[in-house]
Amino acid sequence: MTNQQIVLKSRPVTHASEDNFALRTVPVPPLGDGDVLRRTIYLSLDPYMRGRMGSAKSYAAGVPLDHVMIGGTVSQVIESTNPAFAPGDFVTGYDGWQECHVSKGHDLRRLDPAVAPISTAIGVLGMPGMTAYVGLFDLGQPKAGETVVVSAASGAVGAIVGQLAKLTGCRVVGIAGAKEKCDYVVQELGFDACVSHYSDTLRDALAATCPEGVDVYFENVGGKVFEAVFGLMNVHGRIPVCGTISEYNDPTPTSGPTLRALLTNRIMIRGFIVGEYAARQADFLRDCAQWIREGTLKYREDVVDGLAQAPSALLRLFDGRNFGKLLVRVSPDPTQATRG
Amino acid sequence: MTNQQIVLKSRPVTHASEDNFALRTVPVPPLGDGDVLRRTIYLSLDPYMRGRMGSAKSYAAGVPLDHVMIGGTVSQVIESTNPAFAPGDFVTGYDGWQECHVSKGHDLRRLDPAVAPISTAIGVLGMPGMTAYVGLFDLGQPKAGETVVVSAASGAVGAIVGQLAKLTGCRVVGIAGAKEKCDYVVQELGFDACVSHYSDTLRDALAATCPEGVDVYFENVGGKVFEAVFGLMNVHGRIPVCGTISEYNDPTPTSGPTLRALLTNRIMIRGFIVGEYAARQADFLRDCAQWIREGTLKYREDVVDGLAQAPSALLRLFDGRNFGKLLVRVSPDPTQATRG
Repeated sequence: MTNQQIVLKSRPVTHASEDNFALRTVPVPPLGDGDVLRRTIYLSLDPYMRGRMGSAKSYAAGVPLDHVMIGGTVSQVIESTNPAFAPGDFVTGYDGWQECHVSKGHDLRRLDPAVAPISTAIGVLGMPGMTAYVGLFDLGQPKAGETVVVSAASGAVGAIVGQLAKLTGCRVVGIAGAKEKCDYVVQELGFDACVSHYSDTLRDALAATCPEGVDVYFENVGGKVFEAVFGLMNVHGRIPVCGTISEYNDPTPTSGPTLRALLTNRIMIRGFIVGEYAARQADFLRDCAQWIREGTLKYREDVVDGLAQAPSALLRLFDGRNFGKLLVRVSPDPTQATRG
Repeated sequence: MTNQQIVLKSRPVTHASEDNFALRTVPVPPLGDGDVLRRTIYLSLDPYMRGRMGSAKSYAAGVPLDHVMIGGTVSQVIESTNPAFAPGDFVTGYDGWQECHVSKGHDLRRLDPAVAPISTAIGVLGMPGMTAYVGLFDLGQPKAGETVVVSAASGAVGAIVGQLAKLTGCRVVGIAGAKEKCDYVVQELGFDACVSHYSDTLRDALAATCPEGVDVYFENVGGKVFEAVFGLMNVHGRIPVCGTISEYNDPTPTSGPTLRALLTNRIMIRGFIVGEYAARQADFLRDCAQWIREGTLKYREDVVDGLAQAPSALLRLFDGRNFGKLLVRVSPDPTQATRG
């Protein structure tokens, strides 16, 4: 049995490209004691992966050259010598860009397909959803009646942030690109408004949709979008910085607040990564799984078929060509036939 | 009886100057029912006053032209029709740049000269001391063993920040200008080190004195000092922004963090003003009055005699020519003869 993998072949200097990746086929090793072999069904593609392609100091080390690209996965167990996992089990882990993987299973969490579609374990009920949950609730601390702005509003994180803020009783304004994305977050997700960052008058458009200023800005984008929102921040505003995707291909980003503005309006700004909030995972899963079951929390997936498509699909994140949570279906999802 | 006052005559465009102020003499109004007339003994001069000279949006409105400049004061009651205050009482309030003032006394707090020298009510036991206390403890949240850096280290706020951080068990590094100031904070106040911002190699000098990086940076200065410290911040660093005095004469300041750096190191940065922490005043006075009595907390005053000197004295703050808490002695301090 063989395993197809995608490895990082070179590091981008500015823009990431498909040439930075290479496909290779390796044998699957024989199972040792306590091992779990699983087949990847879904691979999650996320903005943070751009950072792991580089060698610059970030919150995590870059992927070494010629190593398998990292990534969150949903898989099905094929063979197991580990009593905790049986063939047929669905699991989520960080198996990376490959067709299958063998490990002792310490890094795996079992999934119950009856609770929610298995793909949600790397989306609304996984890392992106939890990023939205802790970033908004723990750092942004929105209160009913406040105005919350979220950029990349139709994305895997932003879509959840806005819906959680609506559940809190806030006025919610999204920022997205294409008109269909703006329409989606208002009409499908229930945001109060959405402004396109393609607009030449983004600042004015935002000001018009945020007549009482901005109390919480959930930052996913950076660059000129940050500048437009920052000028509208209210006194005691909070800005959780989740990502700055518009700058990920720029070796020397410059966007950020001035100290004077932070002082004048007593603004709190803070970078965070979800991996440091493991203590909140039980709360997150309890709340969000219930909201999913009730139909309160909606999500949209953008599914690309075939591992070989992962490099080109990843690049779509950086120019806004994806629409919803981006996933690669590496092998058929056996639960799909039975989904309603 | 007459009252000499200093009013704001014009607003500076870039650098504040003595020409922005004018001296005038007005009659003292007769006392109405419940009024308190007091003579100013000490007037506090503080960096925030530069903001009040301008018309730009800040956390407080500017002083209107031809109005008395605002400022914290220590005074003695001369005449009173208010049963809460008797002639001879020492009080602290915000009477501004003038020899005497009449009000109903709602804005006054009585001082006991036996507890601490009365001048401390506008210094280490007043607004500057409380700024240090809430900025360091509530926002900076230092833990024993961490490294705390404070700029304007020999100033009214910085000197207290550093000593409070030492009491917490931190390694404390100051940044000041002149050699005598650097020597003072190390030899008199007990900081572990102090680096001069006059150095061409400020960043390297700081790196050498902070071998384990910086966990808390208490920001009083901005500009190139901020840039030097920011590059040394550790993961989960906290930056309370108290002031940016190096930029106060600059109409368009630019110093600040990049979003990417905030994200990479999960840094929290937050502007604050002490007036919003009134709920902490009792804690502050209890703790700091005790530390003053025990001799644990040291302070240094830079006293200028005569109200007419206030404009030139204020300007000394902005080029670092003061040394310690800057005060104007507007009239003789009757308690001084009895001080040890």
